[in-house]
Amino acid sequence: MKRTARELAAVLRAELEGDPERVVSGIAGPAEAHAEDLIYCESARHMERAQASAARTAVVEPGIRLEGKTLLRVAEPKLAFAQAAALLVERERVAEGIHATAVISPSARTGKNVAIGPYAVIEDGVEIGEGTEIGAFAYLGCGTKMGERCRVYPRVTIYPGARLGDRVILHAGVVIGSDGFGYVRGPEGQCKFPQVGGMEIGDDVEIGANSTIDRGSLGVTRIQTGVKIDNLVQIAHNVEIGRDAVIAAQTGISGSSVVERDAVIGGQVGIADHCRIERGAICGAQAGIPSGKTIRSGWMVWGTPARPMEKFKAQYAWQARLPELAERLKRLEEKAGMR
Amino acid sequence: MKRTARELAAVLRAELEGDPERVVSGIAGPAEAHAEDLIYCESARHMERAQASAARTAVVEPGIRLEGKTLLRVAEPKLAFAQAAALLVERERVAEGIHATAVISPSARTGKNVAIGPYAVIEDGVEIGEGTEIGAFAYLGCGTKMGERCRVYPRVTIYPGARLGDRVILHAGVVIGSDGFGYVRGPEGQCKFPQVGGMEIGDDVEIGANSTIDRGSLGVTRIQTGVKIDNLVQIAHNVEIGRDAVIAAQTGISGSSVVERDAVIGGQVGIADHCRIERGAICGAQAGIPSGKTIRSGWMVWGTPARPMEKFKAQYAWQARLPELAERLKRLEEKAGMR
Amino acid sequence: MKRTARELAAVLRAELEGDPERVVSGIAGPAEAHAEDLIYCESARHMERAQASAARTAVVEPGIRLEGKTLLRVAEPKLAFAQAAALLVERERVAEGIHATAVISPSARTGKNVAIGPYAVIEDGVEIGEGTEIGAFAYLGCGTKMGERCRVYPRVTIYPGARLGDRVILHAGVVIGSDGFGYVRGPEGQCKFPQVGGMEIGDDVEIGANSTIDRGSLGVTRIQTGVKIDNLVQIAHNVEIGRDAVIAAQTGISGSSVVERDAVIGGQVGIADHCRIERGAICGAQAGIPSGKTIRSGWMVWGTPARPMEKFKAQYAWQARLPELAERLKRLEEKAGMR
Repeated sequence: MKRTARELAAVLRAELEGDPERVVSGIAGPAEAHAEDLIYCESARHMERAQASAARTAVVEPGIRLEGKTLLRVAEPKLAFAQAAALLVERERVAEGIHATAVISPSARTGKNVAIGPYAVIEDGVEIGEGTEIGAFAYLGCGTKMGERCRVYPRVTIYPGARLGDRVILHAGVVIGSDGFGYVRGPEGQCKFPQVGGMEIGDDVEIGANSTIDRGSLGVTRIQTGVKIDNLVQIAHNVEIGRDAVIAAQTGISGSSVVERDAVIGGQVGIADHCRIERGAICGAQAGIPSGKTIRSGWMVWGTPARPMEKFKAQYAWQARLPELAERLKRLEEKAGMR
Repeated sequence: MKRTARELAAVLRAELEGDPERVVSGIAGPAEAHAEDLIYCESARHMERAQASAARTAVVEPGIRLEGKTLLRVAEPKLAFAQAAALLVERERVAEGIHATAVISPSARTGKNVAIGPYAVIEDGVEIGEGTEIGAFAYLGCGTKMGERCRVYPRVTIYPGARLGDRVILHAGVVIGSDGFGYVRGPEGQCKFPQVGGMEIGDDVEIGANSTIDRGSLGVTRIQTGVKIDNLVQIAHNVEIGRDAVIAAQTGISGSSVVERDAVIGGQVGIADHCRIERGAICGAQAGIPSGKTIRSGWMVWGTPARPMEKFKAQYAWQARLPELAERLKRLEEKAGMR
Repeated sequence: MKRTARELAAVLRAELEGDPERVVSGIAGPAEAHAEDLIYCESARHMERAQASAARTAVVEPGIRLEGKTLLRVAEPKLAFAQAAALLVERERVAEGIHATAVISPSARTGKNVAIGPYAVIEDGVEIGEGTEIGAFAYLGCGTKMGERCRVYPRVTIYPGARLGDRVILHAGVVIGSDGFGYVRGPEGQCKFPQVGGMEIGDDVEIGANSTIDRGSLGVTRIQTGVKIDNLVQIAHNVEIGRDAVIAAQTGISGSSVVERDAVIGGQVGIADHCRIERGAICGAQAGIPSGKTIRSGWMVWGTPARPMEKFKAQYAWQARLPELAERLKRLEEKAGMR
């Protein structure tokens, strides 16, 4: 989709330097860009690369100068670039129209412009909001309610009864609302504890490929509006993830834990059951939060068991010097006649 | 499914206090319960919540008193509640009847009341026992043998030749019998080692969403009766998991390792190749068991490399005090004139 | 497929001892082998087991003697056995012919002897090379280019625009080319950074079940020829994996990191963003490589943060003795009158 630099500047509230009629028709990294692509440069460190790019238009921060290019100056070039991308790049369709092979229950209700791909299965009582696209082999169990303009990639599976908001993106292989992992040990082995609770997902949530989110056992598993979840993440029964929290790949969150809004969880983090990650707290990659712990707002933690980053670093620095400490201790003992 | 308190008391071998004709028609947590739901209370800590519930019937342990409610007294309320749930809650069907779009080989044999969902593919020589339900997009490779009353959720994939017992539950996206990860380095790069062994799963096994279990390379991968496996777990070739073992989410078990019966493996545990986790041993979350190690019966281990919990705690307590120890050492050296 | 010992010896460049006309028709482990199966024995430790096997033919290394068996002597028996397996074992077909239910765009082009299973979906502009087999429910997005003799197992999902080489094997549930995890924090929550880059996979790559590989954001995610990836691995946007690198199960590699050729990455390793694992370096299981770090050629690292194995071991040895060190320090302080 073609835009002029002038049009982009207006949308991005950018200061325009150069040719306002310059046409921009795509986005790219500096090395791969063609003349009509837009690039961005947010640091003097990357100025040379941006200067060398074939792109003739760039979003830049105040201090950056690039000769012979039309510049859109903003305080946050990466954000402006991402916003420009939404205007310039046509989104690939997950599905178009209702494919003849889709199996759709007569009791399902679909809004305007809903698209459903080949071999999707839409069970009884499902409701799908306007403009939502459902990919091939997607499975929406009985009674699933899904909002408007969602994108459900191929072979997503939604167990019965889940509720999802608007503009939710579910990538390929995601499982929503599966049974949680709960058993009670009885005289004849493990007895399955009921997993019959709810599954609610807010607006603007994105969930990465092959991630799994269990429904509540008796209560509800809740993913609030704006949450972003990476690939291969596991979220257990009765977990609550607060607004705009971000969870990187392969992290696992155990039963009944709460991640409050704006928390940032790194990759491969393990959060045991009944933990609380307070608003805006940060858990570094591979951190392990033991059962029942609270990570306070403002903390950034690392390690297993997780502790504040400064503590981790101080401990780790001495841990690396343990052989030296032991040697010094031995010398003291020798001097004291204790060896 | 409606039951009277008297009927439930008989099945649960509970002592009944209150109205024996009280009708119970479902289960719930105390906060969400309606009058006809059953709740449970196993600790005085939760008595207030139970008392405040709208539910009029509760499974409780001996010491608990709740006014105005009909009580079913048992030694283990959570277990009795789970058993009651099996009577009160109608299981959602994974499939009903044989869907017209299922592709079923003429050489496949299915027992009575087998249900197969839309777009399932059942290959040559498959055998499916009585009452088993196969969900949409499930794939049963050539020669798969599956017992009675199993539940195979949508888009489970079973590679050829696997054998599964009765009442097995496979959640969405599970892969059974895929090739193990084995190569031999040759002059022209990695040469694939044959992955042609067996894949056997006992009765009453449940496997969580998107978990993967590889067939044996030459031998057999075996998951014994009663094993429970959570989501996103990886089990490699030639592994054996003993009866009633429990494995939490995102754990990985490498080639030829053995987890004996009743072992409990936490989330994100890594068990390297040729390990043995003895009967009833417990591996805490994120523990790492190095290649070839044995974890003894009665041990509970944590950390990487995994060690008994008490050792881990003692070491960790001092690790957290390392900066202090280093400071004390420095002061001793100063006093001794060694700095 | 039947072969004589003489034929196998010729292909494997083995020294033949015994009956050159002995027929071999399969492979097996020593315990499970039948008379016509081939076994291998690469160490005197396993000689007894090999001698007791019913197999009458064995690939062995120079020092091994087995009575009554025909021997194929080679320097590397496991490699020769793997090569023999490729001759003796008929590969299971992932698909045969073009199934009537496959949805194939008229603009897709398929080479000779391409097989496509039931309910596979092949979108516009896809190209599939000669002899490639595509399993049930596989999804090849618009413009996917795939080489010759590839094996795509059931329900693999390939997002639009990916390019794959020859003889690539993708196991069930693999996702190729999904959106990377990138957002820019804006005034109204997270703004999605464009994920529109490329996705390239070389020849002879094998990727395990339910693994996920994201396309580049602006650049390209590249998996070079000969790379082997296990189950449930996550590879983020703009990562590059060099020739013949090997990556074990549940490992995660974050954005823009580079794993150079012949590197070996253990299970559950976490590699943060912008790291470089140099040629042939080894990362032990569960290692954590912090953001931006380089692991040098020749290093074998372990732990989080990852350090060379010898350092890890030296530190860990003292860590295990920390309670003892603290006690010795206390005694010194007492002697010095400092407590």
